[in-house]
Amino acid sequence: MTSPYAPLQNNTFLRACLRQATPYTPVWLMRQAGRYLPEYKATRARAGSFMGLATSPELACEVTLQPLERFPLDAAILFSDILTVPDAMGLGLSFAEGEGPRFAKVVRDEAAVAELRVPDMQKLRYVFDAVATIRKALNGRVPLIGFSGSPWTLACYMVEGRGSDDFRHVKALMYARPDLMHQMLSVLADSVAEYLNAQIDAGAQAVMVFDSWGGALADGAFQQFSLAYTQRVLKRLKSIGTDGQRVPSIVFTKGGGLWLPQMSALPCDVLGVDWTVNLGIARAQVGGEVGGRGHTLQGNIDPAVLFASAPQIEAQVAKILESFGLPHTDASTTGPTHIFNLGHGISQFTPPESVAVLVEAVHAYSRAMRR
Amino acid sequence: MTSPYAPLQNNTFLRACLRQATPYTPVWLMRQAGRYLPEYKATRARAGSFMGLATSPELACEVTLQPLERFPLDAAILFSDILTVPDAMGLGLSFAEGEGPRFAKVVRDEAAVAELRVPDMQKLRYVFDAVATIRKALNGRVPLIGFSGSPWTLACYMVEGRGSDDFRHVKALMYARPDLMHQMLSVLADSVAEYLNAQIDAGAQAVMVFDSWGGALADGAFQQFSLAYTQRVLKRLKSIGTDGQRVPSIVFTKGGGLWLPQMSALPCDVLGVDWTVNLGIARAQVGGEVGGRGHTLQGNIDPAVLFASAPQIEAQVAKILESFGLPHTDASTTGPTHIFNLGHGISQFTPPESVAVLVEAVHAYSRAMRR
Repeated sequence: MTSPYAPLQNNTFLRACLRQATPYTPVWLMRQAGRYLPEYKATRARAGSFMGLATSPELACEVTLQPLERFPLDAAILFSDILTVPDAMGLGLSFAEGEGPRFAKVVRDEAAVAELRVPDMQKLRYVFDAVATIRKALNGRVPLIGFSGSPWTLACYMVEGRGSDDFRHVKALMYARPDLMHQMLSVLADSVAEYLNAQIDAGAQAVMVFDSWGGALADGAFQQFSLAYTQRVLKRLKSIGTDGQRVPSIVFTKGGGLWLPQMSALPCDVLGVDWTVNLGIARAQVGGEVGGRGHTLQGNIDPAVLFASAPQIEAQVAKILESFGLPHTDASTTGPTHIFNLGHGISQFTPPESVAVLVEAVHAYSRAMRR
Repeated sequence: MTSPYAPLQNNTFLRACLRQATPYTPVWLMRQAGRYLPEYKATRARAGSFMGLATSPELACEVTLQPLERFPLDAAILFSDILTVPDAMGLGLSFAEGEGPRFAKVVRDEAAVAELRVPDMQKLRYVFDAVATIRKALNGRVPLIGFSGSPWTLACYMVEGRGSDDFRHVKALMYARPDLMHQMLSVLADSVAEYLNAQIDAGAQAVMVFDSWGGALADGAFQQFSLAYTQRVLKRLKSIGTDGQRVPSIVFTKGGGLWLPQMSALPCDVLGVDWTVNLGIARAQVGGEVGGRGHTLQGNIDPAVLFASAPQIEAQVAKILESFGLPHTDASTTGPTHIFNLGHGISQFTPPESVAVLVEAVHAYSRAMRR
């Protein structure tokens, strides 16, 4: 199989995903292409609307590459929205200026759930075209991560119709009609799996499931309504990409730190954690042993650190790297590895200079740790 | 010492706080006096404003007692707001209709922090008068819980000026000027301790510290900026009330489940947990042994369960009680005990009938478990 793509020049991120030794700790940032960058705002203005930006493969490619021009990040992530799948299901996604996403239709009763189907992937062609365009434009510089919202997270928005601070409607449906919730999550899991597989076919070199609202669930409900469907997605994922390489998968449950021991059974490569988690404890729980099985950890600095001065950012970066401890360094086998990231998406108010300090600090300090 | 108050008729809650055996699991609900009750709304309307209600000892007493008229709850909690202390410090608390609390002044720089002082407790006399009025009106029916926000939680509001979803300003201050944050938290800890002690002197039979925003902190920062100051408050608390009885203390950190092992070192009697926590695991971590030391656990059903039908509420109540397991039952010694509560405040949209079902289910099922 010959790859249509240029060979990868920086495989640090992919190696770390697969628990292989790397000369330094790779770093990328959730929402690294976004509003904190003036050039993003300029492209967004040209696009006219957020959906205009997300549905144009050329513009999505442009903003995906913007942070790589500024910072030596070790991965790119597709610029898109987590709600493209329900939109393709016919719920009518829109973004009012200065507000979050909103659906024209909500799913709150038996009839609405019965209508749900795995969407025609042709309706999501703009996403796959964006993946192909970006992969080509990257030209092997760093790997490209594709992504989707988790079934539970998509269900939250589909039932609430928008963001929520108490998830009253979706939880009411879940507790009152667990049968409907399971039906809905089954369709969503199959949709997400198809969606991610199509991203892999379009050139994604890793895929990530954002379980942004899993942490809103009670213990017990999380396992039943979020974890089980993330697992269903993972089981259906292709493991080999268009270039014949392994495509690692990442699962991030915001607020899911308590459930890490259970998440260690997930058939994915990387577990993302938010800033409440101690990386040393998490490594002991899910990192595995040298030569054995285990999960790479991704995370987890508080994005608010980026509002502090350069020396303070450097000190906090060191603290995170030290809390994970020395990653696996033996090239002849696999072992516990760490991918540096934020514990959540970057704030739109972040000074871009702070990001430069952070990325440089991760690379320099993690190289020094290995010496 | 003779008590000016009627003897306590229902000491189930206080016994459970002190790890003593009880015939059933006591239950009360965070925000049990509140907007889900039509009679609360009527009193609130008469008061004219939320602050009008909170600053009138008679009206605060009236709404505190309202849920007890409807449900056989095992404790009453002072009706007040967590932000009374910063208000007394001169920050100017107000509540715009349909919105959360807001401060006229924010504390974001060295000058503003330098001005902070432990407030004159006379400015909080309305709270202590409310405690005395309620204690008298309760007439020994159930014990009265006093409360305060934690130093960190108060600091969040004082720096942000209102609620926040990212705590950008307070975290920026914390990471950029940890010295100022420590100075502010020291004043707050001393203020909260004095405030709770004055509530105890006015007749409170237990006190609770609401660390509502501790869970927003990163691991490491939580221990330094929230836990340490909660500890400072606890160390200064009186342990004996006006009637010569032990006054148990409760600490609730929303989103703090990961830190329970560290919270087990807190010199308080009860640890409240939110719904993400598994009570069986938490009991193993902090519940202690029979005859030994340990913390009572308080919690932790998802308030959204109250939107389901009666049989589903009953099933979820049973699940929570079973997850804790059989509490300590030997009257001759102490051991692990549980106080049933929600994992967070009750929703204003809750049907009051659901609360009746829940309270009845807790009492009936927990009695049955002990047989």
